[in-house]
Amino acid sequence: MLIDLRSDTVTRPTPGMKEAMFSAPIGDDVFGEDPTVNALEEKIAKMFGMDAAIYCPSGTMTNQIAIRLHTGIQTEVVCHEHSHIYLYEGGGIMANSLASVKLLPGKLGKITAAQVADVINPDDVHAPETTLVSLENTMNKGGGSIYTLDEIKPIQALCQENGINFHLDGARLFNALVETGESPADWGAEFDTISICLSKGLGCPVGSVLLGSKTAIKKARKVRKVFGGGMRQAGFLAAAGIYALNHHVDRLKEDHTRARTLGTILSKLPVVSEIFPVTTNIVIARLDGLSPEVFMGKLADQNIKSVKFGKDLVRFVTHLDFTDEHLIEFEKRIKGIF
Amino acid sequence: MLIDLRSDTVTRPTPGMKEAMFSAPIGDDVFGEDPTVNALEEKIAKMFGMDAAIYCPSGTMTNQIAIRLHTGIQTEVVCHEHSHIYLYEGGGIMANSLASVKLLPGKLGKITAAQVADVINPDDVHAPETTLVSLENTMNKGGGSIYTLDEIKPIQALCQENGINFHLDGARLFNALVETGESPADWGAEFDTISICLSKGLGCPVGSVLLGSKTAIKKARKVRKVFGGGMRQAGFLAAAGIYALNHHVDRLKEDHTRARTLGTILSKLPVVSEIFPVTTNIVIARLDGLSPEVFMGKLADQNIKSVKFGKDLVRFVTHLDFTDEHLIEFEKRIKGIF
Amino acid sequence: MLIDLRSDTVTRPTPGMKEAMFSAPIGDDVFGEDPTVNALEEKIAKMFGMDAAIYCPSGTMTNQIAIRLHTGIQTEVVCHEHSHIYLYEGGGIMANSLASVKLLPGKLGKITAAQVADVINPDDVHAPETTLVSLENTMNKGGGSIYTLDEIKPIQALCQENGINFHLDGARLFNALVETGESPADWGAEFDTISICLSKGLGCPVGSVLLGSKTAIKKARKVRKVFGGGMRQAGFLAAAGIYALNHHVDRLKEDHTRARTLGTILSKLPVVSEIFPVTTNIVIARLDGLSPEVFMGKLADQNIKSVKFGKDLVRFVTHLDFTDEHLIEFEKRIKGIF
Amino acid sequence: MLIDLRSDTVTRPTPGMKEAMFSAPIGDDVFGEDPTVNALEEKIAKMFGMDAAIYCPSGTMTNQIAIRLHTGIQTEVVCHEHSHIYLYEGGGIMANSLASVKLLPGKLGKITAAQVADVINPDDVHAPETTLVSLENTMNKGGGSIYTLDEIKPIQALCQENGINFHLDGARLFNALVETGESPADWGAEFDTISICLSKGLGCPVGSVLLGSKTAIKKARKVRKVFGGGMRQAGFLAAAGIYALNHHVDRLKEDHTRARTLGTILSKLPVVSEIFPVTTNIVIARLDGLSPEVFMGKLADQNIKSVKFGKDLVRFVTHLDFTDEHLIEFEKRIKGIF
Repeated sequence: MLIDLRSDTVTRPTPGMKEAMFSAPIGDDVFGEDPTVNALEEKIAKMFGMDAAIYCPSGTMTNQIAIRLHTGIQTEVVCHEHSHIYLYEGGGIMANSLASVKLLPGKLGKITAAQVADVINPDDVHAPETTLVSLENTMNKGGGSIYTLDEIKPIQALCQENGINFHLDGARLFNALVETGESPADWGAEFDTISICLSKGLGCPVGSVLLGSKTAIKKARKVRKVFGGGMRQAGFLAAAGIYALNHHVDRLKEDHTRARTLGTILSKLPVVSEIFPVTTNIVIARLDGLSPEVFMGKLADQNIKSVKFGKDLVRFVTHLDFTDEHLIEFEKRIKGIF
Repeated sequence: MLIDLRSDTVTRPTPGMKEAMFSAPIGDDVFGEDPTVNALEEKIAKMFGMDAAIYCPSGTMTNQIAIRLHTGIQTEVVCHEHSHIYLYEGGGIMANSLASVKLLPGKLGKITAAQVADVINPDDVHAPETTLVSLENTMNKGGGSIYTLDEIKPIQALCQENGINFHLDGARLFNALVETGESPADWGAEFDTISICLSKGLGCPVGSVLLGSKTAIKKARKVRKVFGGGMRQAGFLAAAGIYALNHHVDRLKEDHTRARTLGTILSKLPVVSEIFPVTTNIVIARLDGLSPEVFMGKLADQNIKSVKFGKDLVRFVTHLDFTDEHLIEFEKRIKGIF
Repeated sequence: MLIDLRSDTVTRPTPGMKEAMFSAPIGDDVFGEDPTVNALEEKIAKMFGMDAAIYCPSGTMTNQIAIRLHTGIQTEVVCHEHSHIYLYEGGGIMANSLASVKLLPGKLGKITAAQVADVINPDDVHAPETTLVSLENTMNKGGGSIYTLDEIKPIQALCQENGINFHLDGARLFNALVETGESPADWGAEFDTISICLSKGLGCPVGSVLLGSKTAIKKARKVRKVFGGGMRQAGFLAAAGIYALNHHVDRLKEDHTRARTLGTILSKLPVVSEIFPVTTNIVIARLDGLSPEVFMGKLADQNIKSVKFGKDLVRFVTHLDFTDEHLIEFEKRIKGIF
Repeated sequence: MLIDLRSDTVTRPTPGMKEAMFSAPIGDDVFGEDPTVNALEEKIAKMFGMDAAIYCPSGTMTNQIAIRLHTGIQTEVVCHEHSHIYLYEGGGIMANSLASVKLLPGKLGKITAAQVADVINPDDVHAPETTLVSLENTMNKGGGSIYTLDEIKPIQALCQENGINFHLDGARLFNALVETGESPADWGAEFDTISICLSKGLGCPVGSVLLGSKTAIKKARKVRKVFGGGMRQAGFLAAAGIYALNHHVDRLKEDHTRARTLGTILSKLPVVSEIFPVTTNIVIARLDGLSPEVFMGKLADQNIKSVKFGKDLVRFVTHLDFTDEHLIEFEKRIKGIF
């Protein structure tokens, strides 16, 4: 039995989700006529209390579209130095939007309003104009750490005061919300745009959604076009999204519970010097005396997959296809190795 | 009964295709592990005798990736003034690749080697460097017109001689091939990259493929990433592509036969002054004394959909979901109107 | 004696201009403290009745800054297909601003409001947004042809109506104004930005000025910075500009008179089939039965320099350093050749 | 008497330099015919033992051209987080070249080969390709700190090994060389391109030079064109550069001596908690208990100008126009204030 903990993107649709996909009414979305895509966009916009949404092939695309909406040539994006938008999107902030980055440090991948206030560029020819602050919740490189509403509200206020746009990479936002009990609408009220990934914890095969104002989403359709993200009968995929919003949100808590157990198991290993606080479905282990390559190799020999996440870090992610059975098996095999 | 002749993109998967989609083995393609995506890429690369292929959400993306591979800042793309890559991809040549365009006129959307030779820029600071010639076959704005191998070989030779890359927007290449009897491999031998659309005449819900050398396609994966075109369990969609290559290529001839009949029907209308030569599945009618809007409105009243294609032009496209029954009905309704 | 008719850029400062340069007060313009640069910017802004001006190293820079001000990613510039901004600025529209181009044909390099109206893009995802119309006066490739105010006013009205910016590449605008008697302020009232070249007919060694609103010029300073156009003690150069505006505008008529004579001389040559109408300081001769290279070679043997301007075209430009004496000598040598 | 210590860019040409400027032979450099520009380019290329050079209006332009030469869309530049190219060039790395940045910390603005080795991106779709390492010597934000050849050689070796380009922002390189006794040719041997500023310590009114291979500089001419940096009779300015290379290099030591004294004077002030080590012509003072604004205001009241250089930092730069007389006066006024 393969135990694949590399990412929550590796899941396969459940029978229910597949049935929903297979039976969905479809149409040509480039003409705006795919009823299932339209239904997904409306449903999620409503959940977040936002005006409009657009369905895209990936979270990189929804983030990159948002960045283009909120920037321009000679502008600057403020984000954590470990943000997905900076580290893992191929340099798209620059390659797609020609925007500069101001990279902030911060514990568990999180930044504060005070830090942002310090780096808003003055109105000076030498510096690009600060036009966007982007957060990530949960924060992947922070070990699935959570921002609460209380933490982001001062940043939102600062942005508003300074005419700066505010984007949320909410690839795993639902993982945060099921823990805090905050609602999507609470979050929708704070941001200009939010990107939600359907193919991570929610278990869809493909797709992300960008939320925003009517104007923003209209412009987003133009950006999606030029990136080549316009799909035709995308309803098959969108149907999985609707299904996931109905059936896979609450169950994220199970992933978190298993992640905590998994973290405890790993923390007992002599080669593990630290486990990042486990608050959602991500477990990051710091190794001591063993390289990630060797450690991961030992696990791979036992059919356990993980990913290197830094010089001495290894990441494990729990998900829909990682059950209690897998967890028990994981513990057994780990004990066998060390 | 709706008669939708706006585009060959409006088709819905056949039962066979749908069966193939939902029984396909899938995996996470971002990890390179979707077996169906891999199978599609291998199959089509082999058909064209090319090294490698990459599956993407749209033909705009495959074209835009190819353009980025073959250009750079301060370079120039030579193409027909009515090319899809220039007219219908959101200005992507410039927005994605910062490349300039040299736009050539030409009957039925086609250009010649002599024209290209005339516009290759000299090595001079005032002009961008000519690094790409891009053709389109069949040519949408030329009424589905066909380039033959004999026509493109001199252009290929000129490109090779001048170190210029040569791309084919083959969104509807199979429509050309079933008419000329030329083989995919004949065409694969002439171009650096070829884009093939699966969601037009071939009837898939989503997707295009870019073909090229191993090096080109490896680089294409990086460009696809930054555009946000990396999809996870894309095998559902890729399965449709495999099915289409097996079952929907030869039948394109039926679309062409129906298009010819459709052209003849339209040519008899007093308000139609000209029908572009019908060689594949596209029919372009030039109107006289009636605006496209009014003409299309009369058709729409009879549940016939078409698209405006210029100041006095209307386009009709035949496809998998336009049967003989639709054709008979089309003639009947048209006669009723005029 | 060299007779250099390649361009009006080849002139050397007159003793008076050099004296002005040498005695100018200077300062660090990056700190905004060069009094002579400031004086030039104020003087020319006032002449055109515009709010502000910025001094730059070249006309390519003033044009490229203006294009960036008026465009954005996924926008489109409408201009004549022979515009300097498209043909001779290294593909900068695309390379610097990522904007697409809509290229219009037109006699003597001029376009009309009707043509522009036809190509304003609809609000559609497939097309970039039309945000700029750019004219050139006089029109270099049109043989120094002149737009009159009457011709540009309908284009201005159309732009205003459609929220489109309107830029003038006025590299040789003063050549037009001394012929039509129209005033700089008349022209300043019609455009959002105007680029004026000081190093062509006006005889300065270096520099161009961009005119616009306070907001536009403030933003222009940021673009100039990122292009690397900020110069320190630029007052030496700006002093030449002030001198030229005071002493070299009216005398442009002399260049025009000599150009007309030069055109007449060339028109009598058996190898010249056509002379473009000579209205300012540019003479374009169409050759028949002789290539530009051979024709220019014969002239070069007699120490006369000209430039190739197309497949069968050669351009001659009169200027401050081309006197009656040169003209007489030109005629003598030409007669000797043919 | 104004004591302007804001920057070494504020200098005015000496009588000797001015005489050299206005007696220089000139021509149209866009045609490659300005003899003085050509002479400057040859002279400095020879000094550094490099193939070719190009004269530009500013150091921002020479740096930005170099960056474009060494990068492409989806590539990454490695540099110190306080580099001029990142902080003070308007976001040009991204805006002009669409490249990403990897920003390294490091004492006194300097980085090491080990740091660079750690951040070279793997060949992975998620990350841009590392194609350039850029250093700055002397390092402005490091207080005019010096890299020695011994320090840069391991970085050069690492770059070579990994096929990464290596650029030096040598705006103030001569300040380093007069201290270390290393030669320009020693440095020319290590880098692919070097940017040298003529308008800082060397005292010219305008201009910088980029050095590199013949191929690099040929391409640089195309980039300079599209940025609008091509100037016509630039020989007036280039003449100052030749003069400065002949007369103003050795004397930089005087600026350094004065800077050390100036640092000592400032270090005695109760409000100054730290002076960065003074090795060349830059003095950075850290304040304690007084904001830069208030501190600088007190100095300005005594006609002493400085610049804010961080939250609690103020920078002073000595230069050609700051003499012993100014230094004595500086000390006197400072004592009067505190």
